[in-house]
Amino acid sequence: MLFDTCIRNGTVVSAAESFRADVGILGGRVVSVGCDLGPAAREIDALGLLVMPGGIDAHCHIEEPAYQGAVLADDFASATRAAACGGTTTIIPFVNRLTNASLRASAEDYTARADARACIDYAFHIILDQGSLPYLEQELPKLMQEGYLSVKVFMNYPGYMLGDDSILKVMDITRRHGGVTLVHAENGHCVHWLANSLDPAKKSRISSFACTSPTAVEREATHRALTLAQISGARTLLVHVSAAEAAEQIRWARGRGIPILAETCPQYLVGTINDLDTPGWEAAKFLCSPPLRSQADVDAIWGDLANGVFQIVSSDHCPYRFEGTSGKRAGGDLDFTHIPPGLPGLETRLVLLFSEGVSTGRITPEQFVAMTATNPARIYGLLPHKGTVMPGADADIVLWDPKATTVIRHADLHDDCDYTPYEGRVVTGLPVMTFSRGECLWNRGRFAATPGRGRLAERTPSP
Amino acid sequence: MLFDTCIRNGTVVSAAESFRADVGILGGRVVSVGCDLGPAAREIDALGLLVMPGGIDAHCHIEEPAYQGAVLADDFASATRAAACGGTTTIIPFVNRLTNASLRASAEDYTARADARACIDYAFHIILDQGSLPYLEQELPKLMQEGYLSVKVFMNYPGYMLGDDSILKVMDITRRHGGVTLVHAENGHCVHWLANSLDPAKKSRISSFACTSPTAVEREATHRALTLAQISGARTLLVHVSAAEAAEQIRWARGRGIPILAETCPQYLVGTINDLDTPGWEAAKFLCSPPLRSQADVDAIWGDLANGVFQIVSSDHCPYRFEGTSGKRAGGDLDFTHIPPGLPGLETRLVLLFSEGVSTGRITPEQFVAMTATNPARIYGLLPHKGTVMPGADADIVLWDPKATTVIRHADLHDDCDYTPYEGRVVTGLPVMTFSRGECLWNRGRFAATPGRGRLAERTPSP
Amino acid sequence: MLFDTCIRNGTVVSAAESFRADVGILGGRVVSVGCDLGPAAREIDALGLLVMPGGIDAHCHIEEPAYQGAVLADDFASATRAAACGGTTTIIPFVNRLTNASLRASAEDYTARADARACIDYAFHIILDQGSLPYLEQELPKLMQEGYLSVKVFMNYPGYMLGDDSILKVMDITRRHGGVTLVHAENGHCVHWLANSLDPAKKSRISSFACTSPTAVEREATHRALTLAQISGARTLLVHVSAAEAAEQIRWARGRGIPILAETCPQYLVGTINDLDTPGWEAAKFLCSPPLRSQADVDAIWGDLANGVFQIVSSDHCPYRFEGTSGKRAGGDLDFTHIPPGLPGLETRLVLLFSEGVSTGRITPEQFVAMTATNPARIYGLLPHKGTVMPGADADIVLWDPKATTVIRHADLHDDCDYTPYEGRVVTGLPVMTFSRGECLWNRGRFAATPGRGRLAERTPSP
Amino acid sequence: MLFDTCIRNGTVVSAAESFRADVGILGGRVVSVGCDLGPAAREIDALGLLVMPGGIDAHCHIEEPAYQGAVLADDFASATRAAACGGTTTIIPFVNRLTNASLRASAEDYTARADARACIDYAFHIILDQGSLPYLEQELPKLMQEGYLSVKVFMNYPGYMLGDDSILKVMDITRRHGGVTLVHAENGHCVHWLANSLDPAKKSRISSFACTSPTAVEREATHRALTLAQISGARTLLVHVSAAEAAEQIRWARGRGIPILAETCPQYLVGTINDLDTPGWEAAKFLCSPPLRSQADVDAIWGDLANGVFQIVSSDHCPYRFEGTSGKRAGGDLDFTHIPPGLPGLETRLVLLFSEGVSTGRITPEQFVAMTATNPARIYGLLPHKGTVMPGADADIVLWDPKATTVIRHADLHDDCDYTPYEGRVVTGLPVMTFSRGECLWNRGRFAATPGRGRLAERTPSP
Repeated sequence: MLFDTCIRNGTVVSAAESFRADVGILGGRVVSVGCDLGPAAREIDALGLLVMPGGIDAHCHIEEPAYQGAVLADDFASATRAAACGGTTTIIPFVNRLTNASLRASAEDYTARADARACIDYAFHIILDQGSLPYLEQELPKLMQEGYLSVKVFMNYPGYMLGDDSILKVMDITRRHGGVTLVHAENGHCVHWLANSLDPAKKSRISSFACTSPTAVEREATHRALTLAQISGARTLLVHVSAAEAAEQIRWARGRGIPILAETCPQYLVGTINDLDTPGWEAAKFLCSPPLRSQADVDAIWGDLANGVFQIVSSDHCPYRFEGTSGKRAGGDLDFTHIPPGLPGLETRLVLLFSEGVSTGRITPEQFVAMTATNPARIYGLLPHKGTVMPGADADIVLWDPKATTVIRHADLHDDCDYTPYEGRVVTGLPVMTFSRGECLWNRGRFAATPGRGRLAERTPSP
Repeated sequence: MLFDTCIRNGTVVSAAESFRADVGILGGRVVSVGCDLGPAAREIDALGLLVMPGGIDAHCHIEEPAYQGAVLADDFASATRAAACGGTTTIIPFVNRLTNASLRASAEDYTARADARACIDYAFHIILDQGSLPYLEQELPKLMQEGYLSVKVFMNYPGYMLGDDSILKVMDITRRHGGVTLVHAENGHCVHWLANSLDPAKKSRISSFACTSPTAVEREATHRALTLAQISGARTLLVHVSAAEAAEQIRWARGRGIPILAETCPQYLVGTINDLDTPGWEAAKFLCSPPLRSQADVDAIWGDLANGVFQIVSSDHCPYRFEGTSGKRAGGDLDFTHIPPGLPGLETRLVLLFSEGVSTGRITPEQFVAMTATNPARIYGLLPHKGTVMPGADADIVLWDPKATTVIRHADLHDDCDYTPYEGRVVTGLPVMTFSRGECLWNRGRFAATPGRGRLAERTPSP
Repeated sequence: MLFDTCIRNGTVVSAAESFRADVGILGGRVVSVGCDLGPAAREIDALGLLVMPGGIDAHCHIEEPAYQGAVLADDFASATRAAACGGTTTIIPFVNRLTNASLRASAEDYTARADARACIDYAFHIILDQGSLPYLEQELPKLMQEGYLSVKVFMNYPGYMLGDDSILKVMDITRRHGGVTLVHAENGHCVHWLANSLDPAKKSRISSFACTSPTAVEREATHRALTLAQISGARTLLVHVSAAEAAEQIRWARGRGIPILAETCPQYLVGTINDLDTPGWEAAKFLCSPPLRSQADVDAIWGDLANGVFQIVSSDHCPYRFEGTSGKRAGGDLDFTHIPPGLPGLETRLVLLFSEGVSTGRITPEQFVAMTATNPARIYGLLPHKGTVMPGADADIVLWDPKATTVIRHADLHDDCDYTPYEGRVVTGLPVMTFSRGECLWNRGRFAATPGRGRLAERTPSP
Repeated sequence: MLFDTCIRNGTVVSAAESFRADVGILGGRVVSVGCDLGPAAREIDALGLLVMPGGIDAHCHIEEPAYQGAVLADDFASATRAAACGGTTTIIPFVNRLTNASLRASAEDYTARADARACIDYAFHIILDQGSLPYLEQELPKLMQEGYLSVKVFMNYPGYMLGDDSILKVMDITRRHGGVTLVHAENGHCVHWLANSLDPAKKSRISSFACTSPTAVEREATHRALTLAQISGARTLLVHVSAAEAAEQIRWARGRGIPILAETCPQYLVGTINDLDTPGWEAAKFLCSPPLRSQADVDAIWGDLANGVFQIVSSDHCPYRFEGTSGKRAGGDLDFTHIPPGLPGLETRLVLLFSEGVSTGRITPEQFVAMTATNPARIYGLLPHKGTVMPGADADIVLWDPKATTVIRHADLHDDCDYTPYEGRVVTGLPVMTFSRGECLWNRGRFAATPGRGRLAERTPSP
């Protein structure tokens, strides 16, 4: 057997172990992992490099409708380009219902757009906003059978936040179809009340946003979400957990056998409320929801990451530009209610987590693989095709240099946003080559891929 | 100074200490507590008896509108008669809004009815159902200034359950006026969903009620209520706490400085789910909301009672008859949704708590006084007139024989209900005499009082 | 009846309630509490003042043997003088075994010395060091029957720390005799290991003491002590709790029904590790064991004080002078192992707790009375003679001006130490008059009492 | 490349994922994992079978000195025979110091005996009893450098239990050498005191053993052990955790970043105190230390197993015969102090965990592999040679039929004990073939191996 490609001499890292081996690729799939594999048409020397499954970014916002006038900067082409350059080979963005459209119509529309432009493979979570409720019973079961196996509900935001009765209904459907319910856990009633109660003089400070979304608000919604999961028996994943108090609830629930999963994001691992307290417009670059928290929260989230309380690290890529008519500064003043919350992060997710996690010894390389690739693949039904370099899987692989260092500069990134909140940060550990189904898209600084080559990934319901 | 009455040789029990002393009464008030007090027109020998402040029952339903056809058996005359015979000298029932009436109109109506018929003094909590919301801003502040200092909100029951937004609004008002918000903490959405999801075959078992209101549902609402208290800064009291998991939340919150208070009831201290599992109609006598819990829950509630997590033990007196056209059996079948939940308990509250608590050594006599009299007086603004036998207080006193035993029989009780769930239970510790403002209403088995002698008690806002 | 003394128009504060009343004293005892009491030989106007039971200081070191060369500055005369001037009317110091003496011989020696010099009443805890073990079985039961009802064991300090086997033996004896076991909970093995592992360069910083006694060391010993209490069933009190982590263990244990009581001290409520970080010798004034903790610990201890987790606030008065041949500076360098740990605090305990607790609203006046007088009286078997102003009690009373303010100056204090760690601190709330068995020892700045008038207080075993 | 052996068509299960692949073996090592691998001298069809790394049993007692007269039934030959027949390919028994021997002499003696008789590979933990302390500083560092990387300390048992000072010293050495400290966490002082305090009438019941080792005793020692780990910074593993309360401590510690690992055993997952309550001698078959616990404990341990709180499931194989002069009944009466505690379990470990864990859905096949092979390999420094089927590893493989069922009968087992506590239990999931370094030792009911073929496994210190 002649392989198309053989990656030799690297250290293969799975979610469980690391070992020296060659990886043989044929027809876009890994077909062999072994010592001294036979010849290949294309030989790649990975000596000194880690050979890992390409990242799966399970939380990113792409080509969604404008929110309060703010427009996302990336389309599926630029987003997947940035992803691949950062070592990510699969994305799971959201179907955020189009105006007056049904869930099915929206799902088909998003899928068609991704199909036209994506450079890497993709799947979708379906957002269930208030306007989705009429379509729930009729459309959702069928969509789940077709592979749209994950849905997201909100406990915050006008137009989005659902009552507990609706969430229970959603959970019941996802449970019956082997899916998973993602929950944005902040109590919107509390956020609204706090915003209304805020001293007007404080509105013109960006950091006041944090006062309207304190950790208690996240803790409460987390406890409620886990109770709904306990009542309904539905697998439930809490997205972008930021607060130690929320993580404590999750740890408690998991110890009780409640089917709770959890995700956090790099911004909650490397940023703090101090970033949001920067004077002037600079702080707007760190405005996301939930807000950045205290150093004690950051420490606790790292602890629970190392500890298995969190299964996934995603980017929550939400690329509002800083400048321009639909950017963060478009409102013209520092009133936080006029600044769209969200940060770009698709391309920097893996380097930040590797640098601050693996290079510092906080997590192992195996945990890095688990949280960025294998776990999202398992939870979202993408195994055994995605999230692993074992034989039979798609050859979605990143070669990683654990010693290389660089300074993050937006000028070097590949999204269509105009800044990165991590500008100037030094990182250790970089993606050298990224393969998608055996095709090398990113090769030591050069990106090459045809938009539209990406495909909708196959998914399997959970038993 | 010649006292009207002097109670001699007893052991005075306050919420803090016990000591041998005489109690001198003049003009309906305690004027002296001391050794060898001077003469009195009426001398009472309390040798071997405890001299305690009369009980305050801070949770009882009297003369409220029919609920799903079920009519409460007691009016203010019979309820206060039963109370006095059980050693209670003040009640705090509810103003449950009358159909199409405003809060003020309802409050005045209830107060007038109590004024006409009550044998002992009284105050009111105002229930804020969904129909109350239009009156909130306009009427509640003024009513609180007039002494209606406590309100009750529900997280369960159609027509009653309020959203978190409304509860925050209520808490904000009570905080500003030195009041307290009582919360019935069960998540109504979950209860509703569980009832709908119930195997139809199980509906015809009374005990299935417990499956639709599991402890997780109480725990969640408790956590949410304490978060709303934390956010708003409002003093909040959780009524009729029944589950160990809910008590654990309260303990956590108090350790964090959140202004949370808590009440439990005798039924959650002496009854268990086994009582609800009794075959046939007998179980209906134990159907209340929240449902009776496991023995482990009962043990935990006792522990937290001894431990200061709970401040108040009330009866939640809700006297639906067992027989008759509006009683528990009126629905004709064992489907729990056709049986009104609620138990009579005004007269048995103190004897049950004393017998199972003090006589067994689980709590001290001082804790008994604190939880049945002094604490409710402090929390609801009735100090220093009620809840204490210190000089200056109304002479609301019960003489208690800690050694006397009896068998509870409904035939010996004084309410207008037709059963007691505690029939046949042996208790140790009985009220011998009950004084209300110096007047002896209950004297060793004989009750005498003119309906209408009771007065609206004066209340002071919390600072 | 003509009273010897009548205190009129004050607000009597008990551990349960506050009310306007006169207090009549006859033969050194309170005989009446009432409205408009009859005439007295000595009339005292307490208008605007609080009338409270005099403080009981249940943790103070007086006339104990020198420890590593350091000599305690106070004898029973000066210590009780300072106590009375600060509003305290009973002390419970320690019988710390004399060299080569038995427990009984030591107890009699301490008692004789107190009898000779004390200005106020007293009781004793018996310290059980390693050398006490041979006397345990033979002497302790009898001593407890004679009223030495409380013993103290250490989990730290060479010569003092007992193994779990010995502590269980002690607890078993105290349980059988209705006593209570006090525990100094720090794991001495860990302290020793940390001290040996300390970077030698750090030894010459006073603040390094805190590195050798971190909160984990206190938390572990607390958990162990509560387990021994759980196993033996013996009432156990943890002294001078300083760490949030230790308080959390206590809260957990009390929620489980384990018979755990707890004490903290003013230094852990008003001081922090920052005080120990002061450069130069000044830090030595704040060196005590356990060390001062972080602000987060201080906040947690206040929360658990308000919350009922702690029952007692004592001074841990340990009056090593700052200057002189046996004082804190006697070692000549800043090496913390050469500086005796301990702070003076008998006279400032009540003013600090009132000022920082009651005046700020963190605790109520009733809680102040409970934690400084009634609770120690109950726990140590002194009720109903001490710790209360109810009829029958010794007339140990302090009149307190809640509005008066002063600046703490050692020059104004009455102990024989040469500094106070609280120099310059402004406090609100001061003792105006202190009565011991009806005799006024402290009257608006003037102290008068005959050393030796103090008596050994009568104690009753716990049932 | 012609493989020696190729295992085809099976489902390879790693600790991270499952996938269909062939496994090629050459020279006793796995050299390739892939699709449609090339030819092999020996072809094995694993269709329908799981291909998993052979089990590592990290807790078993073999050829140790008699304890109170009781002799272990297995030698290294019979123990490793039983292990292989149960799917286990590596054991880690103990070096339990020989009388008057040094640590080194003992380690060499045990290793020589294993070398002479073992059928599979092995490593050793070194037990540090009280008599080991003189050898600690001098011998342990060198032994660890030679690969004896794990040590075990006891907090219970005369002759074995070490003080906290000694444990800290041990931890410090293991930390510096990249080793791990195993802790038997029960407070021996409490056990001793409870045994002495036991009603003599109860001694003659086997189940009374549980009264002398209650869960509080395990919880305390667990908390102390984790504090020592926190203080010393040393990786610490708690062996045979049996109590929910202990697991709760571990979960807490892991959430705090304390380097705590934990092991449980099948007996604590399938047995309860009820087994120990069986009348007569039968109960002796279930007497182990810690004792079997309640069903609530069993449920909690399963939950924390699924949840990642536990990393390892070992057997604690301790094969005392039931009959015979040195067996469980040798003492002649039911007094539990005369019955040696310990159960045989090497051969049944994997089938019990698979049947009750994987077949019931409580854990995944990947978690099964992690806890029985990959995690012990990682923790004890055996990766990448043992605990994985990835290329480069020793070909220690078990082929597992997940559907096969059988009834456990001691007659079918291969140890030298005379009973199994699991007699008659039906299990689903059985080992079909077991390979050790490519050699098939167990093949569908037939065992064949030369005693002495087993080797001391190579170990790598933790960084």
